[in-house]
Amino acid sequence: MGEQRSGCPINLTLETLGDRWSLIVIRDIMFGKSRHFRELQAGSEEGIASNILADRLKRLVEAGLLSKAEDPSHKQKSLYSLTEKAIQLVPLLVQMGAWGRRHLKVTHELSVRAALLEEGGPDLWDEFMDELRTVHLGAPARSGAVTVSERLRAAYEAAVAGEAAGAETR
Amino acid sequence: MGEQRSGCPINLTLETLGDRWSLIVIRDIMFGKSRHFRELQAGSEEGIASNILADRLKRLVEAGLLSKAEDPSHKQKSLYSLTEKAIQLVPLLVQMGAWGRRHLKVTHELSVRAALLEEGGPDLWDEFMDELRTVHLGAPARSGAVTVSERLRAAYEAAVAGEAAGAETR
Repeated sequence: MGEQRSGCPINLTLETLGDRWSLIVIRDIMFGKSRHFRELQAGSEEGIASNILADRLKRLVEAGLLSKAEDPSHKQKSLYSLTEKAIQLVPLLVQMGAWGRRHLKVTHELSVRAALLEEGGPDLWDEFMDELRTVHLGAPARSGAVTVSERLRAAYEAAVAGEAAGAETR
Repeated sequence: MGEQRSGCPINLTLETLGDRWSLIVIRDIMFGKSRHFRELQAGSEEGIASNILADRLKRLVEAGLLSKAEDPSHKQKSLYSLTEKAIQLVPLLVQMGAWGRRHLKVTHELSVRAALLEEGGPDLWDEFMDELRTVHLGAPARSGAVTVSERLRAAYEAAVAGEAAGAETR
């Protein structure tokens, strides 16, 4: 990440996150439950190339946004986890989703999670960040009913099922 | 901006904003009162190169984030204005500033405005967006005391003055 062009927080955030692929990789680890190289590549909606994925994972580890460990269940595989610094990107990613939803040509099924998070407001973001801390940092889980991750997944699956049903009746 | 890699709102926001210079240019027009090419280049904290600035201004106009008009007071100069779509980036830029302030090596005087905006919360962002609509879109002004722009500028100038005083007494 080298030299800093200025000490402005917006500039430094942009310098640290680098190009757009870095945030795409963080998004996939955050929302997609993908934590291994192969899953991240196979599940990529944007078709990330393997050399780009490898480079960004390396850079994100160096920048302290991801940690890398041997997966206890598969010794050949590395498991990537979000750090606290990356978990705190939730509000920024929510705002990106909110703006994109309003101004760009998004697809319905890829927007329902962004909508749910935006509408839930800061309380839901906090709850989601605590869940990420449990999964990625080993923090104790909040006791509670349905997790935010489960709610996001259910909304996405319902939207995908709705699209499929719509396509059949067209 | 060409092909879309996916219809995900986060991905599309990243595709639209392109590389980091695009948001730096929007930040400078939004917070710095710079609206002409020369001012934007001369005032750039990050030392943007003139070819990059020219390219990003062109792309931002094409993406509907800036509008370009002849300046009524200087016929040779173009005046750039934020569009409604760009004004709605305020919450995203606030979150970038908030995250940067918390996790990166920011300088005090370039962070005070980010802090003020973050602490003001959504009501202050709305007020600031209305001011930007007055300046950039010709919307009627809210009647009121001191504008958010003036408060941001005063906080920045006080921080710069404080730094200078601190340097003298060191």
